Amino acid sequence: MTPIITAFESSPDGGQGLARDMRVRWALEEVGLPYDVRLVSFKAMKEPAHLACHPFGQIPTFEEGNLALFESGAIALHLAQHHKGLLPEDPAGQARAISWLFAALNSVEPLIVEREQSWFVEGDRPWYPERVGLLDKRILARLGELSRYLGDNEWLEGEFTVGDLMMVMVLRRAEDTNTLERYPNLMAYKLRGEARPAYQRAFAAQLEVAKAAAAAAAG
Amino acid sequence: MTPIITAFESSPDGGQGLARDMRVRWALEEVGLPYDVRLVSFKAMKEPAHLACHPFGQIPTFEEGNLALFESGAIALHLAQHHKGLLPEDPAGQARAISWLFAALNSVEPLIVEREQSWFVEGDRPWYPERVGLLDKRILARLGELSRYLGDNEWLEGEFTVGDLMMVMVLRRAEDTNTLERYPNLMAYKLRGEARPAYQRAFAAQLEVAKAAAAAAAG
Repeated sequence: MTPIITAFESSPDGGQGLARDMRVRWALEEVGLPYDVRLVSFKAMKEPAHLACHPFGQIPTFEEGNLALFESGAIALHLAQHHKGLLPEDPAGQARAISWLFAALNSVEPLIVEREQSWFVEGDRPWYPERVGLLDKRILARLGELSRYLGDNEWLEGEFTVGDLMMVMVLRRAEDTNTLERYPNLMAYKLRGEARPAYQRAFAAQLEVAKAAAAAAAG
Repeated sequence: MTPIITAFESSPDGGQGLARDMRVRWALEEVGLPYDVRLVSFKAMKEPAHLACHPFGQIPTFEEGNLALFESGAIALHLAQHHKGLLPEDPAGQARAISWLFAALNSVEPLIVEREQSWFVEGDRPWYPERVGLLDKRILARLGELSRYLGDNEWLEGEFTVGDLMMVMVLRRAEDTNTLERYPNLMAYKLRGEARPAYQRAFAAQLEVAKAAAAAAAG
């Protein structure tokens, strides 16, 4: 039975692959699982049918038979634990990979998302420039710790895992903030992730959707 | 082999149970697993021995034989997946519980932590009052979605799970912000979590540490 994920009918990022369905598409490609996509409009996301699966009315969701998951982290973990390709064989390695998955989502992403949000929420307020400086300082400190841990290694813990997948996706959101660029080993790490064939296939798939949306909008 | 967790030698919250070791203590109590605690000072947290396990130099960590986990979410999940008491038996229920675990950490906690942080980082800036209003509005919207989903149910998905454990802990951080109080069903939900015997045992254990630290500081 082919799983079905949801994605934006018209992604606000216009196909840059920053929407959270990209994480799930990438994970699906890494484990080699075919999938179907149900595109949802902003209106449909807030209607009862979608809210029953995703209480916050967002994407992505993942449905497979009677399983209905939400949160990109939970979906990526589910794929990693039920298919080969995103977790090492040994329990100790699995524990580290899953720790990194949570670290990406709870210790790194919130700082980066807050910086993005700040522009939308407070971009027109007089305090914005000073506040961005504070936010960048916080991001730089956290990325510095990550950079030190990664060192010259290819991935965070030996082989590529679901932890790297999520961390690379989170770091992508820090592009163009003058923070990530300060750590050449993190930049190289992000590029290694983006160069993976599975990433490339996932990126192309979400870009197709964005192109179709743009064509439809152009009438 | 008894697992060992790390906790603050002297918690900044003085024993209110808001430090992240509380989540792990609670999970350990729910699954009935005895554990040892290694207390770490703020200085020791940033030294190589601790950084090898926790790249960001924080607590908690969880060590059991050759397993070394960090991130409270990863530790709670590990306990839930390897012991009875925090996940339902059926795969569909497990998928929902794990979705809620990630939702607590990635979709709810960041908004609440940002409000806390704001006081520390910007509490003395002229923009602080206006900014807190914006942050509260964002928290209220998210809690409104959570409140609507919970409705009159006891827990998020039927029985108590690791998703409820983490959500209750996250909601505790919104106490005294005039946001959580606006949703009586969420307040009642939080109180139901806190009333569980396992929660009570975990809370008492962390309070003992805080009392010992206070006594030591008083000389």
